[in-house]
Amino acid sequence: MNIQMIRYTLAQVLRIEGVFLLLPCIVSLIYREKVGLIYLFTALALLIIGTIGSLFKPKNMVIYLKEGCVATSLSWILMSLGGCLPFYISGEIPSFTDALFETVSGFTTTGASILPEVEVLTHTALFWRSFTHWLGGMGVLVFLLAVIPMSGGSNINLMRAESPGPSVGKLVPKIRHTARILYIIYLVMTVIEMILLMLGGMNLFEASTLSFGTAGTGGFGIKNDSFASYSAYIQWVVAIFMVLFGVNFNAYYFILLRQFRKFFDFEEVRRYLIFIGIATAVICVNVVNLYDSVGEALTHSFFQVASLVSSTGYGSTDFDTWPTLSKLTLILLMTVGACAGSTGGGVKVSRFTVLLKSIRKEFASYIHPKIVRKISLDGRTVEHDVVRSINVYFITFFAVLMGSMFIVALDGHDLVTTFTAVLATLNNIGPGLSKVGPTCNYSFFSPLSKYVLILDMLAGRLELFPILILFHPTLYKGLFTRKRR
Amino acid sequence: MNIQMIRYTLAQVLRIEGVFLLLPCIVSLIYREKVGLIYLFTALALLIIGTIGSLFKPKNMVIYLKEGCVATSLSWILMSLGGCLPFYISGEIPSFTDALFETVSGFTTTGASILPEVEVLTHTALFWRSFTHWLGGMGVLVFLLAVIPMSGGSNINLMRAESPGPSVGKLVPKIRHTARILYIIYLVMTVIEMILLMLGGMNLFEASTLSFGTAGTGGFGIKNDSFASYSAYIQWVVAIFMVLFGVNFNAYYFILLRQFRKFFDFEEVRRYLIFIGIATAVICVNVVNLYDSVGEALTHSFFQVASLVSSTGYGSTDFDTWPTLSKLTLILLMTVGACAGSTGGGVKVSRFTVLLKSIRKEFASYIHPKIVRKISLDGRTVEHDVVRSINVYFITFFAVLMGSMFIVALDGHDLVTTFTAVLATLNNIGPGLSKVGPTCNYSFFSPLSKYVLILDMLAGRLELFPILILFHPTLYKGLFTRKRR
Repeated sequence: MNIQMIRYTLAQVLRIEGVFLLLPCIVSLIYREKVGLIYLFTALALLIIGTIGSLFKPKNMVIYLKEGCVATSLSWILMSLGGCLPFYISGEIPSFTDALFETVSGFTTTGASILPEVEVLTHTALFWRSFTHWLGGMGVLVFLLAVIPMSGGSNINLMRAESPGPSVGKLVPKIRHTARILYIIYLVMTVIEMILLMLGGMNLFEASTLSFGTAGTGGFGIKNDSFASYSAYIQWVVAIFMVLFGVNFNAYYFILLRQFRKFFDFEEVRRYLIFIGIATAVICVNVVNLYDSVGEALTHSFFQVASLVSSTGYGSTDFDTWPTLSKLTLILLMTVGACAGSTGGGVKVSRFTVLLKSIRKEFASYIHPKIVRKISLDGRTVEHDVVRSINVYFITFFAVLMGSMFIVALDGHDLVTTFTAVLATLNNIGPGLSKVGPTCNYSFFSPLSKYVLILDMLAGRLELFPILILFHPTLYKGLFTRKRR
Repeated sequence: MNIQMIRYTLAQVLRIEGVFLLLPCIVSLIYREKVGLIYLFTALALLIIGTIGSLFKPKNMVIYLKEGCVATSLSWILMSLGGCLPFYISGEIPSFTDALFETVSGFTTTGASILPEVEVLTHTALFWRSFTHWLGGMGVLVFLLAVIPMSGGSNINLMRAESPGPSVGKLVPKIRHTARILYIIYLVMTVIEMILLMLGGMNLFEASTLSFGTAGTGGFGIKNDSFASYSAYIQWVVAIFMVLFGVNFNAYYFILLRQFRKFFDFEEVRRYLIFIGIATAVICVNVVNLYDSVGEALTHSFFQVASLVSSTGYGSTDFDTWPTLSKLTLILLMTVGACAGSTGGGVKVSRFTVLLKSIRKEFASYIHPKIVRKISLDGRTVEHDVVRSINVYFITFFAVLMGSMFIVALDGHDLVTTFTAVLATLNNIGPGLSKVGPTCNYSFFSPLSKYVLILDMLAGRLELFPILILFHPTLYKGLFTRKRR
């Protein structure tokens, strides 16, 4: 294993985090909060460590898939450890486990909080908390690839490990340019949302933090009741942007290239939008009696569908009080998730599309045993290997879900709490049902459960294998044999 | 499609059912219950229809997989319609939907009941109710193949559609002999259980009905509290036999051949027994405080693990009051189910084994990308096609589970009730949790939900595709074009 290259990547990631930690310092200057000093010192510490660590460039810059996975996982763990320090040192989150939980929840764009009240936090902390969503949404390694020249084409393995979806497509031949295009689209869309929110009467602080949470499909709010007290205009803007950030970014690249036809032919995006439409309709009919008007029911239905399918997790109403059919629809939305290549979480629409097509193929083989059918997506045949790995992904997803539930069940909470807490963290959503419903938080879990959920958030964000591989014994075999020599 | 052959098969199945309906008539003679006359008339009616229907042997006896599926599904539906008549005509179950639900639940060895009290039923009805488990357990078409000479090797497609498991193995070259051997093993084991139960103080009626329920892994009891009031001896005998009937019957054939080594090398059986051991231990530790002694806790833990993993569904205690960890273990047991080639339901241990091995294979491909690994079971490579169809099976299972839950959710019961009701019928178990817990019944569901659960029971028993294929539009295309010609 190319340990030098992993060391180099980790150091670069710490440096980037150090730079970004200066942003909350600016916020602290504006709001005159002394806590900004802690952020400044943390930023300097990370910058120093990162600079020292990246002094010696490795001779061999080749990263195989294995190294890509390990480097990515360790980057995310290290970045979370660094990012939680200001929360912990400032005492705004007194427990280290909780501070780490909140930070991992931020970077992985989960938005599950251990804080009963967020309005007591300083502006600085609220800003950093929301900014972690923005950085985690598109990914720190994608950012690294966009700004730092790394020779060799093998660094696509870093992007592969960090980007969501069954297969990573390069928009343009050079990875560096692909990463830049992605970040530019991401930034522009975030800014547009900020402007629209400010037109709705928000100040810059509110508009930026909530836009970060939407863009990264994170879900940390700055009010105790999340989005319940905002105007319908704000709710609709945020809901629409939640849907937009759940769209495969390749589709936006088509728009940039003015290939509008390709945008609308994008099968995953089409299915994603249809799915949102149907789910909104089902829930709206199911909950219409609970609200004063059809319009209000529609607003809340669409907001919650957009929030959960995109894995954001903002709440405009307490959906834990909705009837079973609506809750079941929400659980389905939470499981399916957003498009591949978006900032959203979940199993991904494209994976489900392939899974459903493989059922159809099986039927066809019963009826016409001799016909060989291929599964296609967007007119192209999905390679047998991709179908297989999607199948395995789905099964691994259930294995991790079940395994985590068994440990969390030791806490003795009810089945729905246990199930939705794991689902909501593994798919980076945030709120679940029952005791982890939208009006509740995750503070009551035991430390053991919290660490399991932390791993679930990381596993979910990095799409299982990069994190799970850290637990694979053969990974460490090579390390020890090298030492023996 | 060979419609003549399907007609012939259906007619034969009705004849067999007619013959078996004479058994409850004997019971009615012993207990001097007038209701026996209704069973006699139904038996005669089925015998006459069946005989007329099978007068003309089809010229072409070839059955392809498609015909096998259709013939099997329709056989089971027709058999259930015929079998529910005595319940309905006698008025012991006044609603037709309920009578059909109870009969399908019997034949599919589910054991989910719509009866709040079973002790008020006549001996005749109780006997027939339990006997449907026995016939459905090994399968009526397997019985048909065992007793009626059907030329051509293609009738393995009937067995394939009815027998559980990812691949059907013939024990001996001739299907007729394979079917006979299976039924002989089945009968001998049932008789041994009956004798052991009678040694524990049961009379012939009790011993036979409860043995039928165990052998078919059904779960209909003859007491309102299922097994709670029986002695520990009876509970242990039944628990052990529930485990035994969940074992792949091929393993018993090895014992018949005195190949004991092969029996113990049987990977699926080994994993099944280890799984039972671990689950029993986990639950026993988790519930030990709820009972007077460790022995009692162990008895109930083992009984419920055996009951749910084998998909029988007998209850020795109200496990709905157990803590979350135990309930979660039970849900896992209910999902995994018994061995392929047993009378038990569920996704099957062998399928889960292959699924878990495919996760391991995926990991290996991350760490050593160039190594080509094969998945093996019992030392033999599992063909790529079998792996693929197991993957598809698992995904279809979840699709059916989700789809059914959405319709049942319209009734507005809580999530755990909705989920476990569908899981317990789809995997042919019987009791679930919450409102369908072991002390409850299925009478409160709407007729729509009951018909969905009826289809789930049939889909579960016939392993999804044979029933689902009935809903496939292309199946009927051929029929209409033929008429037009």
